[in-house]
Amino acid sequence: MATDRALRELAHALRDDCVVTDPDVCAAYAKDESEARPIVPAAVVRAESTADVAAVMRVASSHGLPVTPRAGGTGRVGGAVPVEGGIVLTLEKMADLKDLDRANGTATVAPGLVTGELHARTEAEGLFYPPDPNSSAGCTIGGNIATNAGGPRALKYGVTGKYVRGLEVVTADGSVLALGRGTRKGVTGYDLASLIVGSEGTLAIVTEATLALVPAPEGRATLLAFFDDEARIEPALASLYAHRLDPRCAELLDARTLALMQTHAALQVPAGAHAMLLVELDGDLVAMDAALERAGNALLEAGALDVLAAKHGGDRERLWTARREMSRTLRGVARHKMSEDVVVPRTRLGELIRATREISEDVELEMPSYGHAGDGNLHVNFLWNDDGEWPRVERGIGALFRRVIDLGGALTGEHGIGIMKAPYLGLEQSADVIALESRIKALFDPKGVLNPGKIFPEAAKRFHGAC
Amino acid sequence: MATDRALRELAHALRDDCVVTDPDVCAAYAKDESEARPIVPAAVVRAESTADVAAVMRVASSHGLPVTPRAGGTGRVGGAVPVEGGIVLTLEKMADLKDLDRANGTATVAPGLVTGELHARTEAEGLFYPPDPNSSAGCTIGGNIATNAGGPRALKYGVTGKYVRGLEVVTADGSVLALGRGTRKGVTGYDLASLIVGSEGTLAIVTEATLALVPAPEGRATLLAFFDDEARIEPALASLYAHRLDPRCAELLDARTLALMQTHAALQVPAGAHAMLLVELDGDLVAMDAALERAGNALLEAGALDVLAAKHGGDRERLWTARREMSRTLRGVARHKMSEDVVVPRTRLGELIRATREISEDVELEMPSYGHAGDGNLHVNFLWNDDGEWPRVERGIGALFRRVIDLGGALTGEHGIGIMKAPYLGLEQSADVIALESRIKALFDPKGVLNPGKIFPEAAKRFHGAC
Repeated sequence: MATDRALRELAHALRDDCVVTDPDVCAAYAKDESEARPIVPAAVVRAESTADVAAVMRVASSHGLPVTPRAGGTGRVGGAVPVEGGIVLTLEKMADLKDLDRANGTATVAPGLVTGELHARTEAEGLFYPPDPNSSAGCTIGGNIATNAGGPRALKYGVTGKYVRGLEVVTADGSVLALGRGTRKGVTGYDLASLIVGSEGTLAIVTEATLALVPAPEGRATLLAFFDDEARIEPALASLYAHRLDPRCAELLDARTLALMQTHAALQVPAGAHAMLLVELDGDLVAMDAALERAGNALLEAGALDVLAAKHGGDRERLWTARREMSRTLRGVARHKMSEDVVVPRTRLGELIRATREISEDVELEMPSYGHAGDGNLHVNFLWNDDGEWPRVERGIGALFRRVIDLGGALTGEHGIGIMKAPYLGLEQSADVIALESRIKALFDPKGVLNPGKIFPEAAKRFHGAC
Repeated sequence: MATDRALRELAHALRDDCVVTDPDVCAAYAKDESEARPIVPAAVVRAESTADVAAVMRVASSHGLPVTPRAGGTGRVGGAVPVEGGIVLTLEKMADLKDLDRANGTATVAPGLVTGELHARTEAEGLFYPPDPNSSAGCTIGGNIATNAGGPRALKYGVTGKYVRGLEVVTADGSVLALGRGTRKGVTGYDLASLIVGSEGTLAIVTEATLALVPAPEGRATLLAFFDDEARIEPALASLYAHRLDPRCAELLDARTLALMQTHAALQVPAGAHAMLLVELDGDLVAMDAALERAGNALLEAGALDVLAAKHGGDRERLWTARREMSRTLRGVARHKMSEDVVVPRTRLGELIRATREISEDVELEMPSYGHAGDGNLHVNFLWNDDGEWPRVERGIGALFRRVIDLGGALTGEHGIGIMKAPYLGLEQSADVIALESRIKALFDPKGVLNPGKIFPEAAKRFHGAC
């Protein structure tokens, strides 16, 4: 068989033990953290160098062997799910922090470096890498680049793409290209590095990244505000900005989430609280007290029932507990949990929350929401237990996406399209834009070997049955 | 003739008075602010709407008529210089600030809006659009997007591309596409908006942009430091960052510039001063005094002869005078002035300054430098009077670019490649990367009608004789 021949060539080009066909290993690479249907790959290939990745792509191109690159496997939309007869190319062994250049404020990293480790190692040097996806203990920089990942701090600091200066990538035919640059500025030629960011492994495989770091802020302060109604969140955000504050995080828990957290995680909240907003500020140490007071006043003026504040490590962490535990707690509430990371303009957040309530009633599903309120980026969750409920989940998702687009929003703020959102791409983008994207995909990957079945509706249907 | 027929069709498709063939008008659009050889276009077309731009591109595509889009005409590399038999499509009449959304922090603008006007109108609302090219009184947002323009404040706030959320563009065939989005986050599909940013009008024409605004910083403070030696600038920058400061600007005047400013603009400097660094801080008002003191100490510790500081409008502006007047003053020193905006890592700035001195001696030309020291982005100027000196200028430019690449740098930080730097593209980018860029150009513009002769060496040679 063609696949067997390709695998033999791979074992020859790399080393035998880099190409794993053991069924148990392959089964472990059949899925990511999404509800996408698992597909067991024909092999798992463990790259240890850029040369390995290039060799894999040369062989794959010559045999038409589908390659699904894999980073931390924490994706929520099936972006790392392989296709029948294809291989998973895992980058977990390429995990070095190759260089930390304090003076120029850059880190040069391999794609398998865990994001949380980059945080720890940069902060030990007084530097700061802001993007902080909730999965930072397990996700890697390569995956963050593939999805242009965000996180709570994206509110003030922006998403992964803002920190990508230079990339080394391997293209579908095995060429190694240097895109972007290591300098702070540079506009030579087209910005191909930005085109690769967020392309979900469909255009090229990132084998090295030079990331910008910023000075670590001296001071931090955290506030937790409770409100009697979700409708107060949007005006509370407006109040913070009206007070000339630039919070680094503004995270929301809606009424359903708060209720589930009380039941399932024994979260203590003030009587009558039906929404929670966690606000974090940073900046010069000398400015923290005044900022904290202003933020507290802004939240009280917006009708907060109670505001808790903390300036120091342990106290601040305690305020974060509910936000951090949410995703895990909700996973325990039902057998299935699907998190849609929709985005709307900040001023439409109230309408979005109301819409989720209406849809929840209509499809009769539990739909708790939480997430990055300041960015208008809400994780709207669907919880269900019985596979027979799926048609109602699907109806709810479709209704949600249509409302989001009506509100001037986007299907995904940080998870990507992958398999799960591919059927809905045309809701947000015009046929002309999708056609242009398809032509770009074909230009980079004429044989269609790089992460097939992702982003584009037809491809997702063909390879994954998504429709 | 084919061109005449195309122009008649254009006059029919738009309105007669939008298509101008008057020789005086055409002559006024033959050049930008570079030393590129002027070429008088066959006509100047004044678009008043997206529909006009689309109509122009439909006619141009069907006739193979070259179209050079033009914004403010302040470019430094010939990006807006038309080609023989082609037209200039000027966007100066599309200059509306269409929407200023205070609550969501966005401005929706037409491409002909002058950048300085956007600054004034956003600041009047307590908002802030950071990119500030030195030409902001005349350059426009469309041009800023085409070159991914920077300016002094890019040091802290980043360049134009960081503020572009959504674009409406017209492609070579006259299609109108919505790229990106209005929301703060969004990763649906490929990041085509970023691909357009910095593409110098060669891939599509921007007809509307949705830009992110940030809260205006409350406080600002400016410091002017003089040093006895240019070699002290790089350590002075390091000293600022070691003091945990994050200046919004750090602008340098080198020894030659300082000397010329003393002679030609009566600039007063302390005895023995041979380099100047202008530092600007911003942030919470309450933090300004402490930051100013820390910055002053950091500069004195780095050996500053004298440090002047100012916190208020008029006083701050006086400190900026030398920096703002420089470009104009140097233009008065010699008949020709060419400014190369090379970039190196911040820690190689000292080596770059020494290299310019060596090259200046070698080619026997006056080469004053100034610019965005914190970004490692130096405007290295070549001054000459006699056309016969051009071969030495060219030799100097080549030597400079080679040194910059050796130092891990880039050919251009904010001006773009255009015509003038096209011959050197291969110094920075590999043949594989340039080939990929060419294929992307051909995908967007199969007939080659959109701003021909820019970026790519062969095209620049064919259309402009650049070699």
